[in-house]
Amino acid sequence: MCESCKNKTHIAEKSVSDPADKSRREFIATGAKIAAGLTLAPVIGAGLTAGTAEAQTKGDVMKESIVHAWGADSAEGHFHPMDIKRRAVGPDDVKMDILFAGICHSDIHTVHGDWWPAHYPVVPGHEMVGRVVAVGSNVTRFKVGDVGGVGCMVDSCGVCENCKADREQNCLNGTTFTYDSADKVSGGFTYGGYSKSIVVKEHFVVNVPDNMDLARVAPIMCAGITTFSPMRHWELMKGQNLAVVGLGGLGHMAVKLGVGHGANVTVFTTTPDKIPDARKMGAKDAVLWSDKAAFDRYKGSFDLMISTVPVPFKVQPFLELLKLDATLVNVGDLFDMDGINGMALAFGRHSLAGSMIGGMKETQAVIDYCASHNIAPDVEIIKPSEIERAYQSVMNKEVRYRFVIDMQNA
Amino acid sequence: MCESCKNKTHIAEKSVSDPADKSRREFIATGAKIAAGLTLAPVIGAGLTAGTAEAQTKGDVMKESIVHAWGADSAEGHFHPMDIKRRAVGPDDVKMDILFAGICHSDIHTVHGDWWPAHYPVVPGHEMVGRVVAVGSNVTRFKVGDVGGVGCMVDSCGVCENCKADREQNCLNGTTFTYDSADKVSGGFTYGGYSKSIVVKEHFVVNVPDNMDLARVAPIMCAGITTFSPMRHWELMKGQNLAVVGLGGLGHMAVKLGVGHGANVTVFTTTPDKIPDARKMGAKDAVLWSDKAAFDRYKGSFDLMISTVPVPFKVQPFLELLKLDATLVNVGDLFDMDGINGMALAFGRHSLAGSMIGGMKETQAVIDYCASHNIAPDVEIIKPSEIERAYQSVMNKEVRYRFVIDMQNA
Repeated sequence: MCESCKNKTHIAEKSVSDPADKSRREFIATGAKIAAGLTLAPVIGAGLTAGTAEAQTKGDVMKESIVHAWGADSAEGHFHPMDIKRRAVGPDDVKMDILFAGICHSDIHTVHGDWWPAHYPVVPGHEMVGRVVAVGSNVTRFKVGDVGGVGCMVDSCGVCENCKADREQNCLNGTTFTYDSADKVSGGFTYGGYSKSIVVKEHFVVNVPDNMDLARVAPIMCAGITTFSPMRHWELMKGQNLAVVGLGGLGHMAVKLGVGHGANVTVFTTTPDKIPDARKMGAKDAVLWSDKAAFDRYKGSFDLMISTVPVPFKVQPFLELLKLDATLVNVGDLFDMDGINGMALAFGRHSLAGSMIGGMKETQAVIDYCASHNIAPDVEIIKPSEIERAYQSVMNKEVRYRFVIDMQNA
Repeated sequence: MCESCKNKTHIAEKSVSDPADKSRREFIATGAKIAAGLTLAPVIGAGLTAGTAEAQTKGDVMKESIVHAWGADSAEGHFHPMDIKRRAVGPDDVKMDILFAGICHSDIHTVHGDWWPAHYPVVPGHEMVGRVVAVGSNVTRFKVGDVGGVGCMVDSCGVCENCKADREQNCLNGTTFTYDSADKVSGGFTYGGYSKSIVVKEHFVVNVPDNMDLARVAPIMCAGITTFSPMRHWELMKGQNLAVVGLGGLGHMAVKLGVGHGANVTVFTTTPDKIPDARKMGAKDAVLWSDKAAFDRYKGSFDLMISTVPVPFKVQPFLELLKLDATLVNVGDLFDMDGINGMALAFGRHSLAGSMIGGMKETQAVIDYCASHNIAPDVEIIKPSEIERAYQSVMNKEVRYRFVIDMQNA
């Protein structure tokens, strides 16, 4: 939709002007600047595979294209079809037809402007798997027909200390996140995976074995890496006790990945009917937050705790379930956290840490880990027309456990 | 003072009854139970050194004694002389005449009931150095005339997992802290270092080289170990950047110990005239909290941060000065900590940790470290009659940097 005339038949053009309240965004996008337009260096053309919605001739596949997408125009979150631009395929780029796109609670927070004002229209989606339809001349890891995964980021400087240390999500010159993030290549703001195709630098596309259940690969790109990364960083070992707080999209991946690591997993949920689900996923135990006896029983018990709860909650009672020197890693609540008791924290030499997704190397590692350990999320496949219903279901804690939009047949 | 008749000439007898609001206390003293009275096994008598204020014959030194002390009867914190009981010297005990006792901000918090209602009268003091005047039959590390140091704890079970791991401060059966803590040996609550002598289990007394400046040893027993322990646990390395937040008793020891470790130390203080002091102590830089340019300059700079601020403050701006994956260790604010931003914490994979004193092995290590590195606090020596003035000075941030009460000449 054209922002000026509000005519949905026009192409969406996002303004790059800053919102009034931009402080938090600036924090995330430190150093981000809208770079000059893409240099159209020679690219290798490639055939267009079946399923690409846009009417293109073979030669057109490398060019800038108009792509069907589903987005929201305001914080009310009403989704509708719209057309967006995807850039021409540059020498380092991979173009994919998106097959499946997961719905993450972050999509909902962004659309609703919970963290900061969004730049509408927002086309969310940072859990996608797609089929490669074109590659640039410098691309070596992909050829047309391969399957790729794109997660929460699509660009970074590649030369700073953090990028060189495989921490592209912490690029000192500003990571470009997959949607509603200042786009240094094309200008404007990025559009995500609720769309028919995407053009992404090869470095930000992971290789996905074609024999995986592709609808179930998509959520690994955020829910998987976000919970896998702290297990690696805090060195979760076989036989250790892992607590997972919150059993949603991230939480259920944390359970499966924790069980994969040989940990004794205990789930803390607010939803009674998730208790049997947690056990089916391999958790040793699952208890309700209201179960005071369980909190007494588990006091000082956990080597690591991963909290996936996406809203503020009382963290202190969970901190007290940690063993001495252990860490609660928060990957869910990205708001202000209050009521952390300094004395209790000191007494147990506990840590409250945060963790955000993972670098591209680690994202490839979690895909490979899931492939080799036969780990996949529980998904419900929906059509784009069902996005609003799905959002409501996520907010009502009804999803079991990840909605994935079928883009191939959209 | 007798609590029943309020006659100050009577001996103080603390009630063991619980205060109305005991939840936090229970947290700290989990599992603490008032044990049965001391078994009076055979002990080795020892001569009484000069300076012991109590009138005792040589044989009396092993017996229960009445000792001069300085305590407060209420949260108003008016100190006055009183007599307290010290138990007979048991087989594992060391009896010391206290030479010097430091004044820690924790003493003030306790007397004022800031954390929980205190059990008055309170005789504070958990930074003491003394001369041994008697030892029990099982004591091997001390003989009469030696110098010993006593810090924040005087007893623990010795057999639990944490005690065996040199973490007596986390005894699973309840650490006995040096003052106003349920006393498992004698009943009632413990009395601390603002007194002429003390009887302590040998395990909780560290060896102090006699050639150290003894007045300046006392503060190492809390301010020293509290800041030394996180440097060891989080492995502060030569050449790393250490931030010290708050330049008081703990903070100035953190600076000296950090410099001792070869770190580049930066101090954050609210008091302009402490800036040159910090530099004299070896800090590479010292800046005011109000210096926004410094906060910008140091963003993402520190490998480790130790906050010694003893009251709630806005922690988030300091967290953002950490390098990726780095930790802010809070050893000062033992109240609720608010406004920790989940997103910022996640973005930097930062940790907010707590740390509380250190085990006895580590406490001996910091004494030895200070002896070998010629590190000592800056102290102002006062008389017991000056305690109230000193408390006010600490609260007004006027102390430079630790008051030490001269008990030898009291």
